[in-house]
Amino acid sequence: MFDITPIGWVRGGRIEAVDDDWATLEATIELDATHFGAESLAGLEDFSHVDVIYVFHEVDAAAIETGARRPRGNLDWPEVGIFAQRARMRPNRLGVTTCELLGVEADRIQVRGLDAIDGTPVIDLKPYMTGFAPRSVVHQPEWAIELMANYWVDDSVQ
Amino acid sequence: MFDITPIGWVRGGRIEAVDDDWATLEATIELDATHFGAESLAGLEDFSHVDVIYVFHEVDAAAIETGARRPRGNLDWPEVGIFAQRARMRPNRLGVTTCELLGVEADRIQVRGLDAIDGTPVIDLKPYMTGFAPRSVVHQPEWAIELMANYWVDDSVQ
Repeated sequence: MFDITPIGWVRGGRIEAVDDDWATLEATIELDATHFGAESLAGLEDFSHVDVIYVFHEVDAAAIETGARRPRGNLDWPEVGIFAQRARMRPNRLGVTTCELLGVEADRIQVRGLDAIDGTPVIDLKPYMTGFAPRSVVHQPEWAIELMANYWVDDSVQ
Repeated sequence: MFDITPIGWVRGGRIEAVDDDWATLEATIELDATHFGAESLAGLEDFSHVDVIYVFHEVDAAAIETGARRPRGNLDWPEVGIFAQRARMRPNRLGVTTCELLGVEADRIQVRGLDAIDGTPVIDLKPYMTGFAPRSVVHQPEWAIELMANYWVDDSVQ
């Protein structure tokens, strides 16, 4: 077992976890000022994107899936293992999302398109480097494409 | 604080942590059979890539950087904050890498290009979906491009 300590928290953005329309949401990530400061983020502003690693802290332990389930309970999609989907009721309850970095100010950063609610504990931030993108041809099943169709969409631009 | 439990371990691949040449390395990720089985991975084989979230377990707590440092100690590169680089001596010691998925067999998967050594605790697996790639133009500083130049390179193909 490993003890993981939040390095900061999501402030603002959405209050409630919903499935879709995260694209234009903006939020702040505020570092834990007792351990980190502006120097911990020095140079991050030279990157356009940041990987945010966080905990789906509102998922109850009893709800965690270890086997297979249909994503979003959608009967049109197959039962797939919890490690073959990105659902939040997963072992260790970890989320990883690449967001647009809007700005860095002292010990806080502003991001767009973070699919985590207000108050979410952030456990790591990494600059997005193109070298970490897939290094070979990507393919994915049809259900994953359908599931993502409205994930980032914003009603205001439809 | 959150307790994180390994869902499995890296088997094979490299014994020693080195900086470069991870591209063609193949390794197995073996799930913890007391909690997970083939159903936890059902459908993963329909994806070409998987995000592996793991712990740099050999990094000593005393070595963890919370402020700024030069990546790899290279004097040609600027001092940047620990959250502006992907170095392993980071708070919570988490690594996140998108790997090529070579195969799934029961409760184990075969991957190529995982930059984690034999015995590394894996704490989550997520299928790579193109919808989670950056949704706007990417830019990064010159040092990050230089640093990645040999990261995936393999001597056998040079």
